[in-house]
Amino acid sequence: MTLTNSHIIPYLKQAKAKIDEQLRIEISKLNGPKVLIDAMNYSLEAGGKRLRPIMLLATLEAFGQNSEKGIPLACAVEMLHTYSLIHDDLPAMDNDDLRRGKPTNHKVFGEANAILAGDALLTYSFEMIASLDDPEITSQMKVELIKQLAQAAGAEGMVGGQTEDLIAENNPNLTVEELEHIHVNKTGKLFIYSVLAGAILARANEEQMNHLEQFAYHLGIAFQIRDDILDIEGDVEKIGKPVGSDFENEKSTYPSLLTVDGAKKKLNEHVDKAIKFLYKANVKHEQLETISMYIIHRDN
Amino acid sequence: MTLTNSHIIPYLKQAKAKIDEQLRIEISKLNGPKVLIDAMNYSLEAGGKRLRPIMLLATLEAFGQNSEKGIPLACAVEMLHTYSLIHDDLPAMDNDDLRRGKPTNHKVFGEANAILAGDALLTYSFEMIASLDDPEITSQMKVELIKQLAQAAGAEGMVGGQTEDLIAENNPNLTVEELEHIHVNKTGKLFIYSVLAGAILARANEEQMNHLEQFAYHLGIAFQIRDDILDIEGDVEKIGKPVGSDFENEKSTYPSLLTVDGAKKKLNEHVDKAIKFLYKANVKHEQLETISMYIIHRDN
Repeated sequence: MTLTNSHIIPYLKQAKAKIDEQLRIEISKLNGPKVLIDAMNYSLEAGGKRLRPIMLLATLEAFGQNSEKGIPLACAVEMLHTYSLIHDDLPAMDNDDLRRGKPTNHKVFGEANAILAGDALLTYSFEMIASLDDPEITSQMKVELIKQLAQAAGAEGMVGGQTEDLIAENNPNLTVEELEHIHVNKTGKLFIYSVLAGAILARANEEQMNHLEQFAYHLGIAFQIRDDILDIEGDVEKIGKPVGSDFENEKSTYPSLLTVDGAKKKLNEHVDKAIKFLYKANVKHEQLETISMYIIHRDN
Repeated sequence: MTLTNSHIIPYLKQAKAKIDEQLRIEISKLNGPKVLIDAMNYSLEAGGKRLRPIMLLATLEAFGQNSEKGIPLACAVEMLHTYSLIHDDLPAMDNDDLRRGKPTNHKVFGEANAILAGDALLTYSFEMIASLDDPEITSQMKVELIKQLAQAAGAEGMVGGQTEDLIAENNPNLTVEELEHIHVNKTGKLFIYSVLAGAILARANEEQMNHLEQFAYHLGIAFQIRDDILDIEGDVEKIGKPVGSDFENEKSTYPSLLTVDGAKKKLNEHVDKAIKFLYKANVKHEQLETISMYIIHRDN
């Protein structure tokens, strides 16, 4: 199937606008030191695509539910994602000066404030879930949402993946399986969480959960492959950071291990699998499919 | 009142041994990259006094309850405290090479792993609370425990306090009120949380909560004053880090603002207030009072 940009873009823009507005509201509730709040806000407002929160909202819509009820939870996911970007960019980690075309957090606020802003965003994401003010979201659901988020984000998930990614740095000879393992932990699990969190809110049954988990698993890998291809073929203006840096750093990527054509083939295989599982979940698939098409075709 | 060391030490030792054992069990459940788990373990095992978890257990005992049920929650608090020590020691923050007489985390594992180990410990502390496996601890209680921990640890609490502390660095002219504000956020709120978390588990009533909050508030300040005095009068062997560093760094401390004698007077005032509120809470106060005495008299 194909979707034109004229179909994809308005949906994403509208969802992003809602997320952006709520992020501002949530941060404005915090009464902390000015430099800390400014640093948190700086990276939140740095123009992310809001893919993860949008996936959460689209999953609610897949169950015929109003996505409004998912917006605060979606913002918690985006805060956690933003913390990971701030810490990943630090000099001791990936040492990036630019993110989305703007100076990275530590370049503007200094390393100490960048570390602290990340810590505060991570902490606030859990506070936000515990504070969700919606009678339909029970305490039991909140506990499940918090537990799964921590698992996706912690030593067995995102933080573990970043640790492995640093170990694998400058190793151009990973196997595809090793590369996939790193990316599933580093980015995949938060992708999966975004979908499952929407499904938990929508009270999906276990079979639907399993199918949606597989959908998000394959979509997450597809997302990463597209990222690697963009590092070679992308437009620096659109990506907001130098292209070719993976190659220069002798990093193992999907194109370096499989060639660009091989990586594109693998990307399409994973998207096909993702869509297959999406259809199996027997939900209103339109919006999640829209996002999947965007992930393949995106140019930033 | 007075308590001799022969009374205080065995109680603390016994409680610490239980915490230490459970910390090992909790970390062994994690299946993450070896260097990450090793880094987390290194700082957890670096010989902390376990004061915060012990206060949580002592609060349960104050309500006539078996402290065993509080041990996993107490470990979550200690993990969060340990994360804060690892991040505070980083070169971009306080740049400390020694902690409890051992090289700091980043000195052993490098900055990237130290940042990630802190992130993982923070994340795991929330996962542990969400995963508490005790039928007496309801989902509603878990949500409350998570919300209050995030508030105590985040931008309005510990992270905010560390931010303010860095701003105040090299400013020898704070007022006592400004200094107290920083310390209440940086260390006080997690002290208070430790007591209130025990009280939540024990289903304390609101009046008891309020009195115990005041107790822990004053005890937290007393703890910090003692810390500042130890930086001047302490024994480097016992403290495990150089003495006199606050003075060299022209840092505002209780002794620098009030003289050592003035700081000791203030320490005693806060302990007196703490004990007054403890008695008002109308609980079995022995163990919490034991800890309070230890905090005044401790030499490390």
